Order: sequence, then C-alpha cells, then structure tokens
Amino acid sequence: MEPFVISTWKHGVAANEKANELLQSGHNSLDAVEQGVRVAEDDPAVLSVGYGGLPDAEGRLTLDAAIMDWQARIGAVICVEHIKNPISVARLILEKTEHVCLAGEGAYNFAITNGFQPDILHSEASIRKYTEWKQGRYGRSQEFHTDEYKVKKASGLGINDDGNHDTIAMVAIDRDGHISASCTTSGTAWKLHGRVGDSPMIGAGLYVDGTVGGAASTGRGEECVRACGSFLVVEMMRNGMSPQEACEYAVKRVIRLNLLSHHNRDHDYQVGFIAVNIKGEYGAASVRQGFEYALYKDGKNTLNKSKYIIDEHFHIKDL
Amino acid sequence: MEPFVISTWKHGVAANEKANELLQSGHNSLDAVEQGVRVAEDDPAVLSVGYGGLPDAEGRLTLDAAIMDWQARIGAVICVEHIKNPISVARLILEKTEHVCLAGEGAYNFAITNGFQPDILHSEASIRKYTEWKQGRYGRSQEFHTDEYKVKKASGLGINDDGNHDTIAMVAIDRDGHISASCTTSGTAWKLHGRVGDSPMIGAGLYVDGTVGGAASTGRGEECVRACGSFLVVEMMRNGMSPQEACEYAVKRVIRLNLLSHHNRDHDYQVGFIAVNIKGEYGAASVRQGFEYALYKDGKNTLNKSKYIIDEHFHIKDL
Repeated sequence: MEPFVISTWKHGVAANEKANELLQSGHNSLDAVEQGVRVAEDDPAVLSVGYGGLPDAEGRLTLDAAIMDWQARIGAVICVEHIKNPISVARLILEKTEHVCLAGEGAYNFAITNGFQPDILHSEASIRKYTEWKQGRYGRSQEFHTDEYKVKKASGLGINDDGNHDTIAMVAIDRDGHISASCTTSGTAWKLHGRVGDSPMIGAGLYVDGTVGGAASTGRGEECVRACGSFLVVEMMRNGMSPQEACEYAVKRVIRLNLLSHHNRDHDYQVGFIAVNIKGEYGAASVRQGFEYALYKDGKNTLNKSKYIIDEHFHIKDL
Repeated sequence: MEPFVISTWKHGVAANEKANELLQSGHNSLDAVEQGVRVAEDDPAVLSVGYGGLPDAEGRLTLDAAIMDWQARIGAVICVEHIKNPISVARLILEKTEHVCLAGEGAYNFAITNGFQPDILHSEASIRKYTEWKQGRYGRSQEFHTDEYKVKKASGLGINDDGNHDTIAMVAIDRDGHISASCTTSGTAWKLHGRVGDSPMIGAGLYVDGTVGGAASTGRGEECVRACGSFLVVEMMRNGMSPQEACEYAVKRVIRLNLLSHHNRDHDYQVGFIAVNIKGEYGAASVRQGFEYALYKDGKNTLNKSKYIIDEHFHIKDL
C-alpha cells in the first residue's frame, strides 16, 4: 500500500508534512497521526489547537484530543489544561491504560505522572485576542440560550481571514494498509468553561475500523455529536459507499439533525468530514462552502476545497 | 401508542415505577427518562450511580450522565462532582444551552448558576467500602497496564450479590411514540480519577433517532465506546433489524472489537444493551450471562434476564 495522509484545514498542510515523513520512513499510521497533529498543537499561529489556542470565556485554555488505531485501540482526553500536547496524552492512554478516556484533573495528573511537563499555553496573540473579546470586539459573550447564540459571530471561527480554523483532524494509512485517526482542539473560542465538542467523543470526532476505514471531523462539534458523524461515515463505507459518498451522506445526516433539533432556525454553522478506506480511497465533504482539507498523496501535499451541501443562499442540495 | 419503559439492572425496577407514572399521566418520554433514573441517583443503596456511588481511587465521586430525545437534542455531563442529580444537569444543558456537553468544574459551575445545590454525595456505606478497598479487601488498586488490570476483581462489579450493578440506562416511548433515553453513573468503582466511560459519550452510552428508535448501554464502558454501541443498535434498527436483533448484533461487534484491541486475552467483562423502536418493540442483549433489564409494559413491571453471547465457559455463540 502506498501510504498517504489527509487532514483538516490549512494547518493540515504542515501537519501532513510531518505525518508523511513518518509514513515514508516506515512508521505506522498511529505514529503518523500523533506526530502530525502535534505540529498544529505546537504552532501558536494556529488559534484553535494546543499552544496559543483561543481560551474559553474564563480565559482558560482547555484542550480535547483523541486518537484511534486499526485495532480499535483508543485514547482520549477531555478538558485538560496546562499540557501542550494533549494528543500525546491520548496516545499514552491508548498504550498504557485499560481506559479510553480521562478528563480534567485526572487527565492532567496522568500526564504529569507519566513525564509530561506543565506549561503556560497562552501566547501573546491569544492573550491579546481574549482581551479584545472581553472588550466586545468579536461580539458579545457567548450566550447559553439558543435564540441568542451565534457561534460564528461569537467565536470568529469560519469568518477570520488568517487561515485559523477549528479542530485539526487527521486520517492516515500506512504501508501495511493500517489506518489511524487523530484530532485535537482547544474548542470553540470563548466557549463556556468545560464545554466539550465532538473531538473526544469517539464516533463523533473520529472513528476507525481496521476492516473498513477511518474518518474524522471538524466544525461545530455539537452538530457532529448529534449525528455520531465519524462512526456513521465508517458504517456507510462498510455498507459499500466510497469515502466520498460516505462523507456526503454523513453531512446530510448532520444537516437533517441540525434542522430537527434547532427547529429549522440554524443554518449558520460548519461541519466537515474526511475519510480513508482500506482500499486507499479518500473523501471529504462539508455542510457549507469553505471547508478545506490537506492531502499528502503521491508525493504532493495539496490544500483542497471540499464538496459541500448547503450553498451560500442556504439552499440545501440533494438532501 | 401505549407507552412503556425499559431500563438496566435491578435498580431499573424502582426507576421504571417513576418513569411509568409520568408516562401514564401524559408526560413525554424526556420527562420520564430524566425523572426515572433520578430514583437511582437518589438511592444510596445503588452503589454505582449518584448519591452513595463508590468513589474513584482518590476517594472522589465523579459522575457522568447523558440524556437525548427524539428531536436529536442532547445533554451530557462528564466528571461532575458534588451534584446529586447529574441527569438533571444534563437535561438543563439540553434545554438551555447550545452545547451538548459540559465537563468537570464547568459542569459544576453551570449547575450551581442554575440553582443546583452542592452536596456531600458519600454515604456511610460508600465511605466504609472505600476504606475497605484501601485496606486491600476488594483486590489491589486499579492498575494502568492491560496485563495487570482486572476490572471485575478491582471493582466488584458483576460479582457482588447485593444487586448493585453498574450504570442505570433507560429508554422510554410515550403516547406520541416519541422516544428518549438517559443514563447516569458514578463509573467503575476505584477508577483512575477522571476516567470517562461510555455513559456521556453520545452514541456509546445512548442514542436516539426519532425516526427509528433509541438504545442505551451498561457494563464496562470502554468496550462499548470501541463499538459506538448504542448508535450501532439504532443504525441496525434503521436497516430493518428488530430491537432484539440489533442489540445482539451490537454485542457481537463489541466482542469482536474487544478481542481485537486486547489481542484475544480479555473475555472477563460485561456490556449490555437495551433498545426500543418506534413501532413499540423492544430488545436487550449482553456479552455474558447475568445482565438483567427492568421492563414496565402492559401494566407490569418485571425484571428479566437478557440473551447473551458468551457463555460461562467463554464459548462465543454465533459470533
């Protein structure tokens, strides 16, 4: 099998470089997806992942991450603070424990016990942007109530021009045809403290079945959780769909459940999926225009626009 | 539609009483599954849920709960402390926020802000059992490493004789044919602080699709998470299986992924599913003998043994 890697958004390009380097040198996909997304975690210019991520409403940076391999081995961390590389804590949970997920202080303590160093994860830019947000620059504080809540305006996600978009998620296939997936995020900017999105929800943020393929997601996590989106992509591939067809199918499910749960009022969000099957095919699709995925395949690392289902006039195609 | 309710284990009987009372008086299934499992949360004799639940290795009681309705509305709390009724915090997240899940301090703060009162959740019995555990009575401290880990011995779950078993999960269908599901747990006794199982992982611990049905699970959460078990049950019902067939199918998937991820070494666990479809059919199945479900239907509240797949000699039937 010719290995390759796919990941979400512009920050996936640099992450793919690292993942591809590992895949080409014979590392398995689990190493590739861990080390790949660490590049985004370490980069303070990526405002939605790891070090330098935009904090929550209380100014705290809480990180979620998950990793899963072709043997159904899983590691996830929820709401961990002060640890720069949550994806590697997740990997350690996968390797060393019988658990699949640790949250909060428990995740932190586990990390420290296993040699991780606590660190300050705020960057100059994230502190400045938090201060500006408190001054009202990016819209009002995030509201609890559906009618008042506008995640796009509140967070700036999806509308900023600097290429900083949301969760990084990655799916890789190695020489042996083994697939692994990872995702890591600081969550929605200015979120309610403790908010958990799709990333560490296994089946929503990512899923892998070694006999079928793997998938991962990005966007407004709540909408992906409703659809158990990544698991749905994998099940649809099991049922015979190509990765592209499965991603589009899952996006349509996300849209249906979003409409149902929000009583048709809320179209203004993004969810995107990436997927790889064990034949070495890939796919990507999103709710709305604008989702980009990075693909390192056949010696080229490219940034690509995904297919999307809802157009700019909120017209839903082929639902 | 003649409403009915199904829930897990012996403690489901009392929970069903309350849920049925609400269903019969015209409440919807969301009210029924919230108020139903609160009975187990409030009962200190139930050692695996809410007040009086057995604490983690540090003596802390961290609670997980989730609730989902037929409109794909979701609320979940992860690792919340000092709040007696996490299921009602989850319900409030469903009703009042645009989020689907809050963890740790954030969940606690949200509860307090919304009128919940902090409380001491340790009971006389849970403190005594914790002290005994620290003295080595129930086996050694839970180990991190797969080879050393014996959840059954460490936790006593599945082997105690007092009817205290694991997560309570509930699925109900109301007069309008609307299905909701809930689950709430203190997790595995003596767990690593911060450990999260299947209960708050939407798609693992529970899932509902208003056009198909609902499912929920109990047992060793990690094994259910691997299979995204409750979502799988619902998808299989969508594909035409009866609830019973879908539960058995999901159990077999759990077993396959458990064998794969543990390299065939680990059969000594339990996972059980309950499910209801919109036609008003129900089903239940488990990995091993011993799983019981409570069913309040046609005026009778009964405790029933489920079908199981692995027999007492670890022979796997029809995998």
